[in-house]
Amino acid sequence: MRAVDIIRRKREGGAHTDEELRFLVHGFVTGEVPDYQMSAWLMAVVWRGLTDEETFALTGAMVGSGDVLDLSELSGPCVDKHSTGGVGDKTTLAVVPILAAGGVQVPKMSGHGLGHTGGTLDKLESLGMHTDFSAPEIIAQVQAVGACLCGQTERLVPADRLMYALRDATDTVQSLPLIAASIMSKKIAGGCPGIVLDVKVGRGAFMKSLPEARALARLMIDIGAAHGRRVAAVLSDMDAPLGHAVGNRLEVGEVVRLLRDDADAAPRLRSLVLTLAGAGLMLAGRAATSAEGEGRAASLIASGAALEKLRGIAAAQGGDTDALDAAAGPPAAPTSCDVRALGDGFVNHLDAEAVGLAAMRLGAGRAAKGDAIDPDAGAVLRRSIGDRVAVGDILATLYASTEAAAREVAPSVADAYAFGPEPAAPAPVVYETIGLDP
Amino acid sequence: MRAVDIIRRKREGGAHTDEELRFLVHGFVTGEVPDYQMSAWLMAVVWRGLTDEETFALTGAMVGSGDVLDLSELSGPCVDKHSTGGVGDKTTLAVVPILAAGGVQVPKMSGHGLGHTGGTLDKLESLGMHTDFSAPEIIAQVQAVGACLCGQTERLVPADRLMYALRDATDTVQSLPLIAASIMSKKIAGGCPGIVLDVKVGRGAFMKSLPEARALARLMIDIGAAHGRRVAAVLSDMDAPLGHAVGNRLEVGEVVRLLRDDADAAPRLRSLVLTLAGAGLMLAGRAATSAEGEGRAASLIASGAALEKLRGIAAAQGGDTDALDAAAGPPAAPTSCDVRALGDGFVNHLDAEAVGLAAMRLGAGRAAKGDAIDPDAGAVLRRSIGDRVAVGDILATLYASTEAAAREVAPSVADAYAFGPEPAAPAPVVYETIGLDP
Repeated sequence: MRAVDIIRRKREGGAHTDEELRFLVHGFVTGEVPDYQMSAWLMAVVWRGLTDEETFALTGAMVGSGDVLDLSELSGPCVDKHSTGGVGDKTTLAVVPILAAGGVQVPKMSGHGLGHTGGTLDKLESLGMHTDFSAPEIIAQVQAVGACLCGQTERLVPADRLMYALRDATDTVQSLPLIAASIMSKKIAGGCPGIVLDVKVGRGAFMKSLPEARALARLMIDIGAAHGRRVAAVLSDMDAPLGHAVGNRLEVGEVVRLLRDDADAAPRLRSLVLTLAGAGLMLAGRAATSAEGEGRAASLIASGAALEKLRGIAAAQGGDTDALDAAAGPPAAPTSCDVRALGDGFVNHLDAEAVGLAAMRLGAGRAAKGDAIDPDAGAVLRRSIGDRVAVGDILATLYASTEAAAREVAPSVADAYAFGPEPAAPAPVVYETIGLDP
Repeated sequence: MRAVDIIRRKREGGAHTDEELRFLVHGFVTGEVPDYQMSAWLMAVVWRGLTDEETFALTGAMVGSGDVLDLSELSGPCVDKHSTGGVGDKTTLAVVPILAAGGVQVPKMSGHGLGHTGGTLDKLESLGMHTDFSAPEIIAQVQAVGACLCGQTERLVPADRLMYALRDATDTVQSLPLIAASIMSKKIAGGCPGIVLDVKVGRGAFMKSLPEARALARLMIDIGAAHGRRVAAVLSDMDAPLGHAVGNRLEVGEVVRLLRDDADAAPRLRSLVLTLAGAGLMLAGRAATSAEGEGRAASLIASGAALEKLRGIAAAQGGDTDALDAAAGPPAAPTSCDVRALGDGFVNHLDAEAVGLAAMRLGAGRAAKGDAIDPDAGAVLRRSIGDRVAVGDILATLYASTEAAAREVAPSVADAYAFGPEPAAPAPVVYETIGLDP
């Protein structure tokens, strides 16, 4: 078997055998298939696509490039969760403690933020939590407190790391089967039989339209099924940022207020968290339906059990639980700057991507891998879609290490708001769910 | 400027600026653009194509990656010639001496054969001729005898060498603009104002159909014009091998018989050689029309001037002129094997690719770069399209270093012949010409 023949088959629009895909992925990881052949194949896949069967086999080959997390020592139900990424998306920090408090074990591996999107690892690290765990350490941590929030282990799907870096450099990211295989290979290697997917839709998300997001969700559900996993997908809005806070400690604070059941907690964030947690409880058999699961999730918030669990997870991972409470208080950044409305009207649009990039420039995110993060930097949005605004009203407050940095970014946040004479109905936070109930 | 953005533009179906193409080609040659980005771009080009303007600019960028042969020291007209390659294609060995005998200077760089196609360099080396020349040596040789038959200089279009190797390994060869830019970058860097192209069409050629070959020829003519060169193209048949001999010294012998004006010289070979030489004489201003050029070419053969010129070129390049005469005599291979007809009828088809592969297996060609060649090995076709054949007639004779080798290959040569009850009209050797006369 030769890589050039595999490339030819795809260039000509043909379909691969499982063996061809294993040869290609294995060869790429071992270095026998050079990166220039892999990138030509990837572009041919962007062009010609992959059948569902090819996508299942590619995912399997990617999983097989590393280790699958062995959860056999965990006796209860295990559920994993994944979000396709967005701005202000702090759902993992709320959903995982709710599930753990509800008796579901969650060995959850996350990533760092890049560009306009945030990452769970940055939020954890802003609390001083360790996130670098080996497979046995993950199991031990789940056994001890019911959940582990950490980065990917070294041996988890090395093919995906290598392929993703190559796709990033060769503009071959934009392919539904490659995106689905990348996400699902990591979830399958994560070992959980049940997987909740939060597929973001909108201008701040990777999937810009509902049909695209739906196609990705369905493909990931089918990949999961082909590998013996039950997958439920929630299609949620990412036109505007999720919740009010964007930035690491600011977002942790918003989660703490949500789990404290504060009356002023962001309602759209709460709604999505309950949907995702309800789906997870249902997949784990802790609720008969996702609706029942949502009810249970709300109770676990109201009882304080979820917040207590978040505290327990943070402490077990070496985090500062006082910092959790502090995060829910006044922002700790040394300087702030209010962004004020220049006109009257109703907020009709709030550009998630623009807000995400602004937060990145404030120090909350990174333009390139390895950039340092300012855990206190970010933005708190005081007005959102549907709100009435008069000239001079505060739209948002920016937090940064220097006033100059905040002032420089302020105009782009003002521009992220668009106004109209009539109130626009905000998009639903959850567009639809797939595979939640039988 | 970033290579990934250039890849994106092509992936999305956009068109490049000249600057982008220069950046990409220059960066690739210097190593600043890694091969995995180049191969992704090449696959995107196979997918999306290049506009004519992009193709002109790509060719220019490739030419600019190395040196252009400086012909300013040559006082007379200069013409170059290129064939897209085929089986039994020995036209360069005949056309170049005819042109040189007719007062046209020909600094002609050729390549080695690979796979089923032969290469001029292998034929020259079978005579003991040196083919490794520097630019000043080429000029001196052309000044001395009117022509130089050699390999490419080191500094001639390094971008093409690197890109071709990458295209070969990544199955991105099949793209009309990439093929045209590859050929024309070398011809433009070769420095001649006039260029004769022999574009082969048929099952033994790269271009399988006349419309494809016509499109390639027109594109190459336009590239030439964009770079100030006058290009004439001859579209010639490569369904069946050209002439009777396939194999290096066997083909040299066939050329010698042709230039000796032997009555039994292959008529189709002669016809194509006269067309190509006529076009070259016309481009050089040595004939008012290509028809007049053909007449002059026939005279240069009849007078013996062309054969004398071939002898002169061979001698100047250190070749053995006695070997030229010997090649026209009985084949020198130690063993031979006749291939006989198993049925009656008319030869309706003779598969050039199958014959080329058979010759390669006999030792006349190479399966991989660097393989050794047996200069005496090959095939002489005794029957061709239109001939009547009875059971037991000799179709072809195979020459090899061992009888076992010849016997092993014989069945595939027999299979290359297809018979019918009625005589099929052979395809014309020249389908059409483009740009020959104003």
